[in-house]
Amino acid sequence: MNLRIRFRTFFIALLIFVYPLTADADATYKWRLAMSWPEGTPILHNAARRFAENVEKMSGGRMHITVDAPGRHKSALGIFDFVRIGAYEMGHTASYYYKGKDPTTTFFTTTPFGMTPTEMNAWYYYGGGLELLHKIYARHNIVAFPAGNTHIQMGGWFRNEIHSLKDLQGLKMRIPGHAGEVVEKVGMKPVNIPPGELYTALERRTIDAVEWLGPANDEKMGFQQIAPYYYTGWHEPGAELHLLINKEKFDALPEDLRTIIAVAAKEASLDMLSESFYRNALVWGRMREEHGIHIRTFPDDVLQAFKKANDELLQQVANKSPVAREVIESQRVFLTKAKEWSKITDQNYLELR
Amino acid sequence: MNLRIRFRTFFIALLIFVYPLTADADATYKWRLAMSWPEGTPILHNAARRFAENVEKMSGGRMHITVDAPGRHKSALGIFDFVRIGAYEMGHTASYYYKGKDPTTTFFTTTPFGMTPTEMNAWYYYGGGLELLHKIYARHNIVAFPAGNTHIQMGGWFRNEIHSLKDLQGLKMRIPGHAGEVVEKVGMKPVNIPPGELYTALERRTIDAVEWLGPANDEKMGFQQIAPYYYTGWHEPGAELHLLINKEKFDALPEDLRTIIAVAAKEASLDMLSESFYRNALVWGRMREEHGIHIRTFPDDVLQAFKKANDELLQQVANKSPVAREVIESQRVFLTKAKEWSKITDQNYLELR
Repeated sequence: MNLRIRFRTFFIALLIFVYPLTADADATYKWRLAMSWPEGTPILHNAARRFAENVEKMSGGRMHITVDAPGRHKSALGIFDFVRIGAYEMGHTASYYYKGKDPTTTFFTTTPFGMTPTEMNAWYYYGGGLELLHKIYARHNIVAFPAGNTHIQMGGWFRNEIHSLKDLQGLKMRIPGHAGEVVEKVGMKPVNIPPGELYTALERRTIDAVEWLGPANDEKMGFQQIAPYYYTGWHEPGAELHLLINKEKFDALPEDLRTIIAVAAKEASLDMLSESFYRNALVWGRMREEHGIHIRTFPDDVLQAFKKANDELLQQVANKSPVAREVIESQRVFLTKAKEWSKITDQNYLELR
Repeated sequence: MNLRIRFRTFFIALLIFVYPLTADADATYKWRLAMSWPEGTPILHNAARRFAENVEKMSGGRMHITVDAPGRHKSALGIFDFVRIGAYEMGHTASYYYKGKDPTTTFFTTTPFGMTPTEMNAWYYYGGGLELLHKIYARHNIVAFPAGNTHIQMGGWFRNEIHSLKDLQGLKMRIPGHAGEVVEKVGMKPVNIPPGELYTALERRTIDAVEWLGPANDEKMGFQQIAPYYYTGWHEPGAELHLLINKEKFDALPEDLRTIIAVAAKEASLDMLSESFYRNALVWGRMREEHGIHIRTFPDDVLQAFKKANDELLQQVANKSPVAREVIESQRVFLTKAKEWSKITDQNYLELR
């Protein structure tokens, strides 16, 4: 046997056996994630970034995810469509931004007077919430996972103190979504103004009040300087953000990567809740000492009016859509039990501590 | 070239190229995890099991973890040593069981009048808690991760109502650990009795009170039938369980598996908190209707006495050990800020909802 033939045989064998193995080891995925948050937004950008990093590490580099901010993809509120059509494989956003696409998506983020973060997680992972989320997003060719929680949000900054429902009449407030509809029903004027113009709008009395996120994000907006009445929260008791994934592309992944994504999203959910709590607690500790902020809770007649308006709106949505009814009912049934348990545990403990 | 030589060349090539690739793909780890919980314990066993399953799936089967209950390894409270010496690669247990080995381990589980689960997670992941946990466990050749939370535990079942501190004098109660020392300081007699004998002990008045876990685990113990005064919690406001791993073996793992373990543990932490809340809320909803249970909060003089005793005990531990002082101080500093934030968010929201 001459050397040439020997080498040729050797390389043919090499190709036959190495090709399928290297093909498998090389099955890397370079995916892109579009997030709703501007580059560097405290807490929110971090949740998207650590999700991507964990997936890369856990997959041993087989899945690399590039995170794009609106500065690049130009559509902070277009994540749902990006993912649906596959322009981006993934997105990190708030489900309730897509109320116009599907009214049911709202309640996966939060519901006024609804569940706290702990209650929300109990509902998602044990009370059937995740199944409903999957069912509803599947209709849009999307797989969604909870992937970040803002913790209980404050009710907003007001220029003047609110003594009764009367004081809210005609008051202009930046408050979007379902909560905006609630305050409108009781006589307020909800408006939407781009973040960059909020301070000036408040200063020039284009608006009288604004709700944003929490101290860690609000402080640098400067609201406390001109609207020193800081009201406690009722409308977003633990807004959950979501990871959206193009369903066809997700379903085509091997099982290990699908599990890696699901677990990394759940990790991001806990991590962002922890970071939200931590940063807000720290910044609040400083703010309450440095500025003359007055903490207020809405008077009882205001809260009752908000509750009534909220119940009526939920009923309207439920009447229009059987799937929305299913989600609203599932949350309502669980919350009835959850409230009793939270009362003798979380609430009681915080009161006696 | 004859056929024999051709085949021989082919198989040599095959071996040369396939061997390193299969060897790599074959680098599987068959690890064993010893848990403190009896087979099938609601919530607790599930946390250990889902951790193992997620690791197996995320690693594409490269890491298989067998979960052993005390029925097999015979030492529910010996997990720390099993893992330290490497008899088991991993354990799932409560850090405060190992107070005798290292008094500092106690506070990683919970501290009376201390942090709620959300506060605890904020401290672990953003307030330096995880770094302290790693630092202290490294001294014992162990890597520890938070991996399950029981949610806020109730204060226990009492045969008789407690009207003042006087009523606690000489009262025998099953309450272990640091909280046991607290109640002892105010005049009670803490005792430890194996779970299987608790009901009889309570029935025969060997003990007057018992704290266990929460409705989902307590109901089948039957305590409500003979001790109908159910007191709200103060001593375990969100006990965090831990995954313990032999440090040498953990450090020798490739990076992807180390990350998979860390992320799966964090997922188990959120998942168990969610399951604890869900099951307790559901069982409590039924129990409070079916049984004549009286919910009570300890009177103010009792709570003040518990607080004082707890503060003194923490001071004693801190005086004896500089590392324990570091943990206690780190928690105290964060909790001072966390309390103010929880007051205007969680507590306020639960009160107005």
